[in-house]
Amino acid sequence: MYAIDLNSDLGESYGAYVMGRDTEIIPLISSANVACGFHAGDPATMDKTAKICKAAGAAIGAHPGFADLVGFGRRNMAVSPADAKAMITYQIGALDAFCKANGLKMQHVKPHGALYNMAAKDAALAKAICEGIYAYDPSLILLGLAGSEMITQAKAMGLPWAAEVFADRAYEDDGTLVARTKPGAMIHNEDEAVARVIRMIKEGKVTSLGGKDIDLKPDSVCVHGDSEKALLFVQKIRKALEAEGIAIRPLSQVVANR
Amino acid sequence: MYAIDLNSDLGESYGAYVMGRDTEIIPLISSANVACGFHAGDPATMDKTAKICKAAGAAIGAHPGFADLVGFGRRNMAVSPADAKAMITYQIGALDAFCKANGLKMQHVKPHGALYNMAAKDAALAKAICEGIYAYDPSLILLGLAGSEMITQAKAMGLPWAAEVFADRAYEDDGTLVARTKPGAMIHNEDEAVARVIRMIKEGKVTSLGGKDIDLKPDSVCVHGDSEKALLFVQKIRKALEAEGIAIRPLSQVVANR
Amino acid sequence: MYAIDLNSDLGESYGAYVMGRDTEIIPLISSANVACGFHAGDPATMDKTAKICKAAGAAIGAHPGFADLVGFGRRNMAVSPADAKAMITYQIGALDAFCKANGLKMQHVKPHGALYNMAAKDAALAKAICEGIYAYDPSLILLGLAGSEMITQAKAMGLPWAAEVFADRAYEDDGTLVARTKPGAMIHNEDEAVARVIRMIKEGKVTSLGGKDIDLKPDSVCVHGDSEKALLFVQKIRKALEAEGIAIRPLSQVVANR
Amino acid sequence: MYAIDLNSDLGESYGAYVMGRDTEIIPLISSANVACGFHAGDPATMDKTAKICKAAGAAIGAHPGFADLVGFGRRNMAVSPADAKAMITYQIGALDAFCKANGLKMQHVKPHGALYNMAAKDAALAKAICEGIYAYDPSLILLGLAGSEMITQAKAMGLPWAAEVFADRAYEDDGTLVARTKPGAMIHNEDEAVARVIRMIKEGKVTSLGGKDIDLKPDSVCVHGDSEKALLFVQKIRKALEAEGIAIRPLSQVVANR
Repeated sequence: MYAIDLNSDLGESYGAYVMGRDTEIIPLISSANVACGFHAGDPATMDKTAKICKAAGAAIGAHPGFADLVGFGRRNMAVSPADAKAMITYQIGALDAFCKANGLKMQHVKPHGALYNMAAKDAALAKAICEGIYAYDPSLILLGLAGSEMITQAKAMGLPWAAEVFADRAYEDDGTLVARTKPGAMIHNEDEAVARVIRMIKEGKVTSLGGKDIDLKPDSVCVHGDSEKALLFVQKIRKALEAEGIAIRPLSQVVANR
Repeated sequence: MYAIDLNSDLGESYGAYVMGRDTEIIPLISSANVACGFHAGDPATMDKTAKICKAAGAAIGAHPGFADLVGFGRRNMAVSPADAKAMITYQIGALDAFCKANGLKMQHVKPHGALYNMAAKDAALAKAICEGIYAYDPSLILLGLAGSEMITQAKAMGLPWAAEVFADRAYEDDGTLVARTKPGAMIHNEDEAVARVIRMIKEGKVTSLGGKDIDLKPDSVCVHGDSEKALLFVQKIRKALEAEGIAIRPLSQVVANR
Repeated sequence: MYAIDLNSDLGESYGAYVMGRDTEIIPLISSANVACGFHAGDPATMDKTAKICKAAGAAIGAHPGFADLVGFGRRNMAVSPADAKAMITYQIGALDAFCKANGLKMQHVKPHGALYNMAAKDAALAKAICEGIYAYDPSLILLGLAGSEMITQAKAMGLPWAAEVFADRAYEDDGTLVARTKPGAMIHNEDEAVARVIRMIKEGKVTSLGGKDIDLKPDSVCVHGDSEKALLFVQKIRKALEAEGIAIRPLSQVVANR
Repeated sequence: MYAIDLNSDLGESYGAYVMGRDTEIIPLISSANVACGFHAGDPATMDKTAKICKAAGAAIGAHPGFADLVGFGRRNMAVSPADAKAMITYQIGALDAFCKANGLKMQHVKPHGALYNMAAKDAALAKAICEGIYAYDPSLILLGLAGSEMITQAKAMGLPWAAEVFADRAYEDDGTLVARTKPGAMIHNEDEAVARVIRMIKEGKVTSLGGKDIDLKPDSVCVHGDSEKALLFVQKIRKALEAEGIAIRPLSQVVANR
């Protein structure tokens, strides 16, 4: 039986600043990546998000990012591997405190934004991130870009890992994401996006921007919850997956049965 | 046999900003209160401080404060109990992550600066702090001002607690600290300071500024490690305590044998 | 001829966090209070807001607040008068830089949130704020709560001042705002709110919550621009004021002709 | 007659964190670069530093950096040119407020740390910085690395500029600084360092690490004030310069007479 995880970046509000439609998206996904206060999120928001996850039965994970609130963690920063590791440890612990306080077990860690993108290609940074996770709890699952250095480093370390794909992004021949600045980077047709995801899950293949069939076996698909349109797409992809006999399961189950 | 804990506020460096002489003071104390990144401290400093504590065999605790780095957490802030609780949860978890990553067990939590002083008198704030600690780990010890609301709330909740005294501060008739702005607030004579601490430990009494003998039974004495003079005083008080047959023990042992 | 200023708090977005409907509200007001990066706002937002003010012909002023982004500057902080003065100087200068870069002259300064409320009653804090403004540019207008310590201190210093009233708030017998926690604090009926403002402008009087006629002569009315309802109210009050022959003019003109 | 400016990075304390020996170094230099609150410095420190500059007669300039306090502005950040420009405008205005409040005229702007180094090579970033300065006040002097993109962009824009050299750093054949990670990057011999500076000033030449004579005409030499050793070196270089008939003058005079 096929199974896939649906994950989404959540808990991104900050004080009086509201972002995302967490109460609506969380019941539609299986794993929530919760911001940890560096690029987004604050203690009260983290607590609230943990409670929403608990009520909805969604698995919870940390979504650590660069300490760049004004840039929303989307700007590359030349952080040393040692500092990156400490930054990961700090943010994981902060989120885990709200998991514990709410009777939840943290399932995974997915780096955010620029940290995610940099670590996909930078072996030393990816290794530092994995070391931070491993030293805290070697049973946590690293959720990283399919085929990236993050997955490579997690495997080398014996850290559980999960490969993430994007329904709305095109891939290069080598399996990396097409840069957003390049024409054709985004898959705008929703039916096409859904069909691509189903093929990835069932066949482990996707057609690259260059027209080549490449291997890409996903454990989790990233979806968004920040607009009406995004929410409708999640409902659509859920239905399509279920119609194809693909179960939506939290990352821990998908990884365990891989 | 008499026993007392010596605690000190540590890990207060921030990036390029160095504060405190942690490597020198930590071997002289039994419990370290480590800043958690809100009023002082940063992830790399927290990791480094945990490693120094481990090497020196000092017990480690969280020292959470207000999110006011420029004010060093020393300015009162009107934080709601709910926000205070979330802020405590976050900071405890962040420090605990470095404890776990370094194979240490977190022993206690001591609120910092203005948060400590406000919670000493504000029952709702004190309760929120204790709730934050209890929900995370009900075996953690709250270290608070002897005779304060923090101790009262911890007792009411069944949270382990420890009473802190200050060697260099005078006390009012009701057992509260004499405000720093008041003449006679500070005990400048080191021998007098040491003698007062010994009497508190052995007799459970101290002479107030008003000349009255008041009850004050300490579990821990706060010492400083930010100057040569401070370090010399710690060595002096250690010797004096040992000469009086008073053992210096981490908070957990002092509390267990109280 | 009667004249009044309509002011609104703006430029409160922060990085990816969007707040307020600035492009819609600014053309409807005569004076904009722009957040300066401490409680809200960031450099790019400040620049953008200055450009919107310029395009709309609205006068611009600084809206400095406490350095408490997560609390949106709404939590009281025990900041010393010296620090408050420096904080005001810093934020005024930062906003003025965007005024200069965009060819605008800064008109006024209105403290934000908790700083505004504390300074309304705390003479030392109010004086420090006025000193910060005066030392930077003694022609700037302090916009403060009508009848407050801020106005008193500005008058004493020879700093231009303007009295602000709120259409949707009830007043106590002594002219202070009824605390939001007290029943009757808010005027929910829009027609009543408009009628009260018109009476304040024409007669310099308003009925207190206790039913007494009190003196209250406004230079400016604070309006909001964060919702559809708020925008409709601003259009409503504009029409009503114009129908009563009350001109809507920037603070500088209202104060000059007072 | 030969003239040179001595500049130093100052005002880098932050709240309770003390950095630098500002009161000792400022009387020894002619131009002070004052941190503006993003990578270091806070409003009260900026005010204090402006007052020290005034008392010592040192010219004052802004030292804007990345919003990365924990990294002290030394970590590269992928900030867009538009955001860099706004960030410069903000920080210049903030520092200028303290200049005005203290009756000083701001003389120059020197970007800090990673921003300085990135802009030395990145034309778009350098241009954005110069635009930020120019739009605020086209008479301000940009102080940048001799031979860098910052100087190129300032010249192209008609913005006054000044070329900075380092006494303790080696140069490559193309006039760029030898990377600190490369052997021979630092000139440890103080007499050699002084002799090199004198030759740069008098002959406009320096010997590169590769042994080649290269053109390098300085307007200002960067000196440090964070240690006893650094202070002694400044006194030494001052004496040596004076002995050679080289006057130490603020940047504005050096540039005017170039």
